Amino acid sequence: MTKGLIGLDWGSTQLRAYRYDDQGQVLEKRALPYGIRHLPEGGFPAAFAQAVEHWPELPVLACGMVGSRHGWLEVPYLDTPTSVDRLAGALTALNAAGRTLHLVPGLRDPSRPDVMRGEETQVVGVLAQAPDVARRGCLLLPGTHSKWVSLRDGHVTGFATVMTGELFALLTQHSILGAALPPAVDDEQAFRRGVDAARESGAAGALSRLFSARSLMLDGSLPPASVTDYLSGLLIGDELRIAVAAGWADASSSIHMVGEGALCDRYLRAASIFGLTIHQAPDATTSHGLWRIADAAGLISTQATA
Amino acid sequence: MTKGLIGLDWGSTQLRAYRYDDQGQVLEKRALPYGIRHLPEGGFPAAFAQAVEHWPELPVLACGMVGSRHGWLEVPYLDTPTSVDRLAGALTALNAAGRTLHLVPGLRDPSRPDVMRGEETQVVGVLAQAPDVARRGCLLLPGTHSKWVSLRDGHVTGFATVMTGELFALLTQHSILGAALPPAVDDEQAFRRGVDAARESGAAGALSRLFSARSLMLDGSLPPASVTDYLSGLLIGDELRIAVAAGWADASSSIHMVGEGALCDRYLRAASIFGLTIHQAPDATTSHGLWRIADAAGLISTQATA
Repeated sequence: MTKGLIGLDWGSTQLRAYRYDDQGQVLEKRALPYGIRHLPEGGFPAAFAQAVEHWPELPVLACGMVGSRHGWLEVPYLDTPTSVDRLAGALTALNAAGRTLHLVPGLRDPSRPDVMRGEETQVVGVLAQAPDVARRGCLLLPGTHSKWVSLRDGHVTGFATVMTGELFALLTQHSILGAALPPAVDDEQAFRRGVDAARESGAAGALSRLFSARSLMLDGSLPPASVTDYLSGLLIGDELRIAVAAGWADASSSIHMVGEGALCDRYLRAASIFGLTIHQAPDATTSHGLWRIADAAGLISTQATA
Repeated sequence: MTKGLIGLDWGSTQLRAYRYDDQGQVLEKRALPYGIRHLPEGGFPAAFAQAVEHWPELPVLACGMVGSRHGWLEVPYLDTPTSVDRLAGALTALNAAGRTLHLVPGLRDPSRPDVMRGEETQVVGVLAQAPDVARRGCLLLPGTHSKWVSLRDGHVTGFATVMTGELFALLTQHSILGAALPPAVDDEQAFRRGVDAARESGAAGALSRLFSARSLMLDGSLPPASVTDYLSGLLIGDELRIAVAAGWADASSSIHMVGEGALCDRYLRAASIFGLTIHQAPDATTSHGLWRIADAAGLISTQATA
């Protein structure tokens, strides 16, 4: 019988499927536009059937919004502090078309409270690949809702969300700051100026400077096409200012960032202005995390003995 | 010949017209839906003609967005620190349908920079009626773009904008925090909880807690219909936190607030949680301010001798 695993990274806008061999190597990947907000006719079962079509009858592990209130089946959050083993022991099973799907729970930090769903699997992916970060680390997952995660001795001890990406989108698309602007141009100087403004805002914070995106433009010292980059710098800079003020990160500790591309590059540039060090965390964290959780849950060996 | 004044409070969404007698008493008021974004056919001249129809040929003084870049005629900002006399000496004249309109400049605080247009006339209205505040005061004008104004010896020494009202609208109407909520109900406890969260956020600020509007709701400890009041408390609370952190206000100084109604009532309740004292500033500030500026500019006596 074939050994291995099928992993699903099932978020709001996309469904990614991975087929692994029995050593955890990804043999095949699929990306479907069937996030939980954009399901095909037939809903979750139809999307699932398409994602695994012609693949062998392997155990299936899924993470992400598929386990949320508006997903296929709501899976309760697991409280921090927690480990990979506790996460693996808290899977919820769901039967569909003769297969059993196992769903990864999201995490909840009861001290705030704060929640994540999907990112916990990325965090596990880092833990699986970077033991030094797992011992004592600060993990940053930038995005629509950036997550700052504290790790200690292989446990997720807590985390917090900053809505930087969503605020940026709201302000550029719907607020007076983004109204009637010409198409944005890349302006590194404007970006750095925004980061500086956030840093200089101190305990008041960047909300006390938000309107400067308009007043500097009216003043003639910020070109209208550069307002977007200024706002990006102001909000990313404020996220870093918050991380320091709240004690999530400091100049003596390294921040490990999950992700790549233009957005992560902005965080790197902003961090250097703050005197913070950001390292790139290992890549392909979700597929690694799914494998690691399935392994800890005994899903792979269970199948082998079936 | 008739003596007196016509004053126009001409903003983005409304045009208010006041006819004064020669002592500054308002004899007649008109409100038209012709803000500069919603002009009738015929544009500014037609809106103006309608606002002053059948009124005597009095001097006309206008403040607000009518003097902005997208207004009838752009009037340059006047830098702080400034006084009523300097403001009155910086009017710009515009000829329309045989009448002369005098436009009040907005103010610019070059130290930030920050700008206001329209609120400067409200500030003058307070100065004209409350000499104690004019000597040394902190003026708060809550709204879409709240203004915090420092007064000293009858001068506006500086000011800052916090976009509290606009952020609240963006977050409730367009963000995930406001998505799929039932109609909001009044929940004083949720409002106070939001204010508390802002206060407790300390130097990190309320952006570090923004996502709690969702996580508390998912957690079951904040009813979905109360999320709006929680967000209102969080944002108004953060504005007060910023004011203290930035040194615009402190527990030993009184804050004088311009405005009335439900929004101002929220600021009063939030201030009491912060241990700050807010006094209600004198009412009808724009109409008083227009008269005071016209008087300082000699517009009323000029007309009398014409």
